[in-house]
Amino acid sequence: MPAAAARSFEVLPSVRHVDAAGDTPDACRGEFPLTLAFRHAGVQRVVVRWEVRGAAHLPIVAVLGGISAHRHVAASDAFCERGWWDAQADARWLATHRVLSIDWLGSDGALDVPIDTADQAAALAAVLDALDIDALDAIVGCSYGAMVGLAFAVAHPSRVQKLVAIAGAHRPHPFASAWRALQRSVVALGQLQCDEAQGLSIARQIAMLSYRTPEEFGARFDATPILDGGSARCASEAWLAERGASWANRTSATAFVRLSESIDLHAIPPPAVRIPTTLVAFAEDQLVPPDDIRTLAAGIAAPVRLQVLHSQYGHDGFLKEPDAIAQVLARALDVGALDGKREVCA
Amino acid sequence: MPAAAARSFEVLPSVRHVDAAGDTPDACRGEFPLTLAFRHAGVQRVVVRWEVRGAAHLPIVAVLGGISAHRHVAASDAFCERGWWDAQADARWLATHRVLSIDWLGSDGALDVPIDTADQAAALAAVLDALDIDALDAIVGCSYGAMVGLAFAVAHPSRVQKLVAIAGAHRPHPFASAWRALQRSVVALGQLQCDEAQGLSIARQIAMLSYRTPEEFGARFDATPILDGGSARCASEAWLAERGASWANRTSATAFVRLSESIDLHAIPPPAVRIPTTLVAFAEDQLVPPDDIRTLAAGIAAPVRLQVLHSQYGHDGFLKEPDAIAQVLARALDVGALDGKREVCA
Repeated sequence: MPAAAARSFEVLPSVRHVDAAGDTPDACRGEFPLTLAFRHAGVQRVVVRWEVRGAAHLPIVAVLGGISAHRHVAASDAFCERGWWDAQADARWLATHRVLSIDWLGSDGALDVPIDTADQAAALAAVLDALDIDALDAIVGCSYGAMVGLAFAVAHPSRVQKLVAIAGAHRPHPFASAWRALQRSVVALGQLQCDEAQGLSIARQIAMLSYRTPEEFGARFDATPILDGGSARCASEAWLAERGASWANRTSATAFVRLSESIDLHAIPPPAVRIPTTLVAFAEDQLVPPDDIRTLAAGIAAPVRLQVLHSQYGHDGFLKEPDAIAQVLARALDVGALDGKREVCA
Repeated sequence: MPAAAARSFEVLPSVRHVDAAGDTPDACRGEFPLTLAFRHAGVQRVVVRWEVRGAAHLPIVAVLGGISAHRHVAASDAFCERGWWDAQADARWLATHRVLSIDWLGSDGALDVPIDTADQAAALAAVLDALDIDALDAIVGCSYGAMVGLAFAVAHPSRVQKLVAIAGAHRPHPFASAWRALQRSVVALGQLQCDEAQGLSIARQIAMLSYRTPEEFGARFDATPILDGGSARCASEAWLAERGASWANRTSATAFVRLSESIDLHAIPPPAVRIPTTLVAFAEDQLVPPDDIRTLAAGIAAPVRLQVLHSQYGHDGFLKEPDAIAQVLARALDVGALDGKREVCA
């Protein structure tokens, strides 16, 4: 555990709360209030929510997903609902590791301030303190989680052995930032009078275009619209609208806007990453271009493996290509796997 | 002139109206009402507005731009305001041709029905009748104008000698259609919220991302946002917002929605194009993928030249790469230039 002076947060263990299902649960959850000095927003009082899955003797890995992910990575006996990464449920790495995750600061919509990936990293460090974990064996981060993993490696290098960062880089790409800024403008437009849900739904649909690719849409949807009540409906519209509405149903506008913005605020200097790192890029990723991940790989001051995968799902490859990802993780989480200095597998 | 029986429109010459500035003007404009059987919307009464620029003895070419273009292609003594293609003002092809163009049906916002590219082609044919022009020497179409040029070649093959179609194909790509459908949803959201101008502005900004490329944004904008009043402002936001607002100021929501939709309704069978055709694709075009233009080239039943250009401006290359376009046009508009059957210059 680091010296108290090095911490920007204070855990209040008296009100720490742990839920666990059954007598010998295979997963447990907890939450605790935390007073945290945010990078851009001063001192804020927040609630940190975590979940741990897997036996206590296993190597422990923090698994962090995109901005719409949460602490429930995969189903367990204790918490049997599907997790955001149930696509990895049968992967060997999941059975051989204890998995820790958190709900993102801001994801409950209660925090309407600029949130940095460094703030999320501080929340994760607070969970390690609360659970008496000196150091993680690894962080596996996807998309926003990759950025948070990088921020954690920079701020708390002694508390994690290695990092796997999938579809995330040291900075947001300016084109992707423009795309996100417009989504936030659409949310604001929806809030103007009172159709927040429709604004959120459209914003999510615009985001989905950036998560996917023209290749997928070309293979999946017809080019011919149908005329319906005097207007053309394109082949993908119903699918996108259903996905947008269902997402808007379970997401608050504040949470979406502040976490979207948090991606744009992310900035870490690659040489400040000094732990062995596996980077995964998708060649077709429209949101996090492989070139940015190559720049990151070239700058990291530790052994690096960069693996460029192909997926017609682009950025969403981390969710939609479970076998390729499981292979990457099996290799990356193996002890001693990163003995070479730099390696690129395209 | 084709037989009256072959026409789906009726010109009413008694109310035809022609403006011409000066005694021997270098350009003139006119408009006339037209009763036209629309492909998807029955018989509609519309006003067709045209402009002709250049001496009467020159070969005549119809020049058609994107959905926000209009009949005023380039400045003249008669009409000295900048045209939508003033980037070509110094090109030799412009000085050596008589240029005809039209305002798109629907661009005045007075027509709230589904508009097909075939309807625009019919309007152009009506202008030829009105001006006693048997056949055009060529059509040069960019973006939506390329689609209309293709529709004209299919419907009126005897009235045009050759076609140059830049950044347009025989169909909309399903991913681009999804992108446009979301823009139309944003316009509808703005109308719902009594902020039509903001809805239009955001829709235009979303469209601009599809017209441009990550390469341009990466070179042009910083990755670091500024925090302004508790929110992050990305580097491109002010530029995009200014462009969106200025465009919303001069565009009606109905015009935008119906012309955007018209792109999605466009569908022509490539083998129905039976006149010599030059196709131009931009390798970086996110809206009209070069592969679709290759498919079109392979299907056209006449001599075809396909030229693939590179531009960091992507789809907007037709506006932003004037020298490369001028070279293509100089070659394509030369008599006898298309003697080979198929030619690909990448």
